[in-house]
Amino acid sequence: MSLLTVGTVAFDDIQTPFGEARNAIGGAATYISLSASYFCKDIRLVSVIGDDFPQAELDHLSSRGVDLAGLQIRQGEKSFFWAGRYHNNMNDRDTLDTQLNVLADFDPVLPEHFRQTPFLMLGNLTPAVQMRVLDQMEQRPKVVALDTMNFWMNTAMDGLRDVLKRVDVLAINDEEARQLSGEHSLVKAAKVIHEMGPRFLVIKKGEHGALLFEGDNLFFAPALPLAEVTDPTGAGDTFAGGFMGYLAQTGDCSFDNMKRAVIYGSAMASFCVEKFSIERLKNLTQTEIRERVGQFVRLVHFDAKLD
Amino acid sequence: MSLLTVGTVAFDDIQTPFGEARNAIGGAATYISLSASYFCKDIRLVSVIGDDFPQAELDHLSSRGVDLAGLQIRQGEKSFFWAGRYHNNMNDRDTLDTQLNVLADFDPVLPEHFRQTPFLMLGNLTPAVQMRVLDQMEQRPKVVALDTMNFWMNTAMDGLRDVLKRVDVLAINDEEARQLSGEHSLVKAAKVIHEMGPRFLVIKKGEHGALLFEGDNLFFAPALPLAEVTDPTGAGDTFAGGFMGYLAQTGDCSFDNMKRAVIYGSAMASFCVEKFSIERLKNLTQTEIRERVGQFVRLVHFDAKLD
Repeated sequence: MSLLTVGTVAFDDIQTPFGEARNAIGGAATYISLSASYFCKDIRLVSVIGDDFPQAELDHLSSRGVDLAGLQIRQGEKSFFWAGRYHNNMNDRDTLDTQLNVLADFDPVLPEHFRQTPFLMLGNLTPAVQMRVLDQMEQRPKVVALDTMNFWMNTAMDGLRDVLKRVDVLAINDEEARQLSGEHSLVKAAKVIHEMGPRFLVIKKGEHGALLFEGDNLFFAPALPLAEVTDPTGAGDTFAGGFMGYLAQTGDCSFDNMKRAVIYGSAMASFCVEKFSIERLKNLTQTEIRERVGQFVRLVHFDAKLD
Repeated sequence: MSLLTVGTVAFDDIQTPFGEARNAIGGAATYISLSASYFCKDIRLVSVIGDDFPQAELDHLSSRGVDLAGLQIRQGEKSFFWAGRYHNNMNDRDTLDTQLNVLADFDPVLPEHFRQTPFLMLGNLTPAVQMRVLDQMEQRPKVVALDTMNFWMNTAMDGLRDVLKRVDVLAINDEEARQLSGEHSLVKAAKVIHEMGPRFLVIKKGEHGALLFEGDNLFFAPALPLAEVTDPTGAGDTFAGGFMGYLAQTGDCSFDNMKRAVIYGSAMASFCVEKFSIERLKNLTQTEIRERVGQFVRLVHFDAKLD
């Protein structure tokens, strides 16, 4: 089945303790689409860029099955730009610069053939833009997933509450879950967030893995312990892309299949951080992905011998 | 098989955001012994206390199969005392007071019948004391496990290096593993630490679970996500007690059985934090423990459908 995603397509300047990248390709929708493209061959992207974005990168997205009919290209304007520096632990980062550029007045317009997509991933953007996309769907998608961040909780909480009522899966990090719910315990946070709308909650804990909640059902997926992390940028979006891509591929929203989707998302994120920017997501093979998922199996499976 | 443990038997003052306990029973050897007592019926404890330690608590340890022949009781002296305050996240804590008391000149003396114990858990103490215990073993134990902390790395690194050469399993937390190895990546840290002696390395990450390394073999056990954490004190020692108790019970040091030992240790730690001090470890049932391990199975198991 097809997957629609809305989010940024952007440039990033990235500094880590081990190197840096300037004007690297970034953006939530870029990572989500590329990651999902390994599972789902019909991906629809809604975003906005300036005339500074390399055509070769757009061509690459198209070649991976990403339909760019919903990508607005503004002549004479600049794409969204973010610059950040990671701390030694590679978990914390400082934002050095944010230039909204074309994103400042982004009004997403869904092409006619995007309006009945069964899987919808609303990347981190202002809740008003996320709502605008939802409002243009002619049919309620089978699964609506949403990412957001503390900034929108601080500045647009009413809008965020409204969108959350229409969302099936909320995928946010642990600090965001704590802020959104007002609860420190993630178990308690999940109960509060379920009440806000999302039936499923994915809490991304970076190098500490991810939790999936559905009512009293609970699943934990580790992050793969890696010898080297080159660049964590986009790992959360890559997770979301793998997760939603796998759901779109299988069309199965049982909790057992949601678990697999979390593992596939985690596997994709583990590739993402191996190189700067989107480099590692450009030419993965299905064999590499299956082998990586096999590593997750070996990492956590045990025979409890309870019988 | 039998398990010998050396470590503190002590009093703790504990403050958490949710309550406090004064003069609560604590100490590494207390937690280790109690936790292990659910798996292994022949536990030998080596420690030192003053004449201020309640006889009822010693009787309770004895009733759980803990042989106190190696527990020195110093008349007219006071037991080791620690006071700490946990931060809101319950992971970080400040030490408010440490009174070594009887521990200042502790010289462990192993009773004759302790000297051929096959499983040895060296709780967190000065490396010189840990070495003194090792030196009194008449036969090299089947498994020697050791806990230590940053303080000994800062003040007694040479002694620690010497002990590590004679250790099979090192069980420390993530920050300690980073300091000991000089590597931020835990995968790299494990390689460095293996070179120091321990064939197995358990890295305890608190609420983020635990990693088990043996060469290129890697296993991850989550911590159970809990709605309430009352008191994290002793969770690491309770983990170690469950881990070593399970190994002593089964006598099996294969990697598959080590995985189970990590899960049993994690299950015991998840009980420990539910109440202050050792309260929750006093009267668990085997049914409760099996059910808790079942929760770990459900938490992480998935069918990858890779075939």
